[in-house]
Amino acid sequence: PSTSHRSYTITLLPGDGIGPEVVSVAKDVLTLAGSLEGIKYDFKEMLIGGAALDTAGVPLPDETLSVAKESDAVLLGAIGGYKWDQNEKRLKPETGLLQLRQGLTVFANLRPATVFPQLVDASPLKKEIVEGVDIMVVRELTGGIYFGFPRGYGVNQHGERIGYNTEVYSALEVDRIAEVAFKIAQKRGGKLCSVDKANVLEASMFWRKRVLEKAKEYPDVELSHMYVDNASMQLIRYPKQFDTIVTNNIFGDILSDEASMITGSIGMLPSASLGNSGPGLFEPIHGSAPDIAGQDKANPCATVLSAAMLLRYGLGEDKAAERIDKAVEDTLNRGFRTADIYSTGTNQKLVGCKQLGEEILKSVESNV
Amino acid sequence: PSTSHRSYTITLLPGDGIGPEVVSVAKDVLTLAGSLEGIKYDFKEMLIGGAALDTAGVPLPDETLSVAKESDAVLLGAIGGYKWDQNEKRLKPETGLLQLRQGLTVFANLRPATVFPQLVDASPLKKEIVEGVDIMVVRELTGGIYFGFPRGYGVNQHGERIGYNTEVYSALEVDRIAEVAFKIAQKRGGKLCSVDKANVLEASMFWRKRVLEKAKEYPDVELSHMYVDNASMQLIRYPKQFDTIVTNNIFGDILSDEASMITGSIGMLPSASLGNSGPGLFEPIHGSAPDIAGQDKANPCATVLSAAMLLRYGLGEDKAAERIDKAVEDTLNRGFRTADIYSTGTNQKLVGCKQLGEEILKSVESNV
Ligand SMILES: CC(C)[C@H](C(=O)O)[C@@H](O)C(=O)O
Ligand SMILES: CC(C)[C@H](C(=O)O)[C@@H](O)C(=O)O
Repeated sequence: PSTSHRSYTITLLPGDGIGPEVVSVAKDVLTLAGSLEGIKYDFKEMLIGGAALDTAGVPLPDETLSVAKESDAVLLGAIGGYKWDQNEKRLKPETGLLQLRQGLTVFANLRPATVFPQLVDASPLKKEIVEGVDIMVVRELTGGIYFGFPRGYGVNQHGERIGYNTEVYSALEVDRIAEVAFKIAQKRGGKLCSVDKANVLEASMFWRKRVLEKAKEYPDVELSHMYVDNASMQLIRYPKQFDTIVTNNIFGDILSDEASMITGSIGMLPSASLGNSGPGLFEPIHGSAPDIAGQDKANPCATVLSAAMLLRYGLGEDKAAERIDKAVEDTLNRGFRTADIYSTGTNQKLVGCKQLGEEILKSVESNV
Repeated sequence: PSTSHRSYTITLLPGDGIGPEVVSVAKDVLTLAGSLEGIKYDFKEMLIGGAALDTAGVPLPDETLSVAKESDAVLLGAIGGYKWDQNEKRLKPETGLLQLRQGLTVFANLRPATVFPQLVDASPLKKEIVEGVDIMVVRELTGGIYFGFPRGYGVNQHGERIGYNTEVYSALEVDRIAEVAFKIAQKRGGKLCSVDKANVLEASMFWRKRVLEKAKEYPDVELSHMYVDNASMQLIRYPKQFDTIVTNNIFGDILSDEASMITGSIGMLPSASLGNSGPGLFEPIHGSAPDIAGQDKANPCATVLSAAMLLRYGLGEDKAAERIDKAVEDTLNRGFRTADIYSTGTNQKLVGCKQLGEEILKSVESNV
């Protein structure tokens, strides 16, 4: 164990639905795993999403963004719920999340889709197809159609009303996400697949050209290109063909969710959103699940594993991260399951969010 | 059998790769099934895609479009191949297809994703999840980001180069595709799911609003809305929840391919593209498969079933269409399989494209 003492400021954004429950567990795990490695935290809990709308009238209060910016890393639960679904865009919980991503310039969204051997039967796909799947989707997160201008409503040349958005990528935006993706592929299986729609869209042709340019700096990475429609099929047909995938914001939104559903255990999957400097944003890929909120039924693993990503990618604290990854694995091996990953007839123990958290803490302890 | 004699002009567009082989089979099946119902055809074979590029220097010669427009229906094989992959946009085979869709104003693309009971084991998904899946994806085909302006390359306010496209929908465009989708849902299970990204995009909020308006005319159809990222998950998690799906051009491109891969037999799936007047365009959903082109290995079923859709949706010849649907089913039941749907160890006969075509013809004959 390390003897130096490091201290970090972490912004906690519990958010809506099951967010508070899972962040609470992750905070405890982060604290324990950190303490075993000589790490101390200063936690700042702030408002975002529906919770912020209800209290402060906006989905991302200025104070939340400034505290987040000044911290070393940000851990988010989830945002959104039926209550705010009909709000206008400016007042949607989602808008708070988009403002946070943009405010922190976390342009690289890392979404691992990993099949846990213990949970392989939970996949809707056949065992032989998903066993061993380990994909990293690198999604561009602060550009493209999500943020492009012009956007809005208007009237076209025939006098008809229209709604419109702009898909746009600059050289800098493609270059920096490609760079992150090549570096990640280098550390993983050495294979990068860039997904686009270059047979139809200029924005995609531009993307492909810049990715090809960047590839020259990474001769050791095997680069391929795939159209997004084909990628959505290949992920199902033969997911093991993929190592690292890089794609734009909207295609990444769709494909990363598809990839995670293939694993069958969306309650297990973390994500990291990183910029070139400043704090990273770490969050489970699942949503706020308002139907089970406050019932102690949520699976905290995705958020706990997001905390591990926070340690590894956000703080460079690999050892503490490793402790958490191992503890989650150990807890699964000991048979503890929340409802979403529980299957009857095997040697499993159905527990709630809190108890699963306690079991993870025990695993962290015993792995010293 | 009907005693009246009807005659139709059909434009055949074999295109590239396996296109010519599968169209040749479909033409024979169309002819036989038609003759048994007193239907005659005048077939006009025209160039499109790479074949047109090689001969006429453009992917859609004017003559092809004008002949297509004047005919009663258009049957397309497939377009594209490695040879033309690096062409500039104007000279891509894909551009010819997009021009054809736009030229015929076939704004409604109907893509059934049906699991054939005989082929359920070919799905990458577990049997209990895919058995009985029968989804109709209604994809908007002549609008959105595929055709929106402005588009191209330029420089942004920071002087960086950019590539961009415009996602845009007008009231008329949404209204007419929604109308088609509601009518189809009405004739099917009575459930319509509209897929969008209304939590982020104005174009999607506009889409959703117009769909909600249109819904008032179809009180008997149960309408729901789903975000595209969630839809890409739900299609895998529990595809049987879907009856009819309506969505924009690019989301439809991605989701319809995903839905067809779920069935496990992409070589079996047809599509129809319809406008409010003028000929419809009918094509298999699979591509040109250049790797097996000219080897008599292609599965002609998707094109044969597209010919059935041509009869049903394009010409209103339901009886002849029925003959074809039944013949394909009968051929499967008699154990004939091309390589893509063949599995060893069962009572199956592996055949090539031509022989499968002959077996389908036999089934058409014997079903009189
Ligand atoms: C909530 C929504 C705005 C968000 C997105 O589309 O990016 C979510 O789907 C995600 O993927 O994190
Ligand atoms: C070939 C391509 C332009 C086309 C599309 O994107 O529409 C194809 O993928 C399809 O779905 O028919």
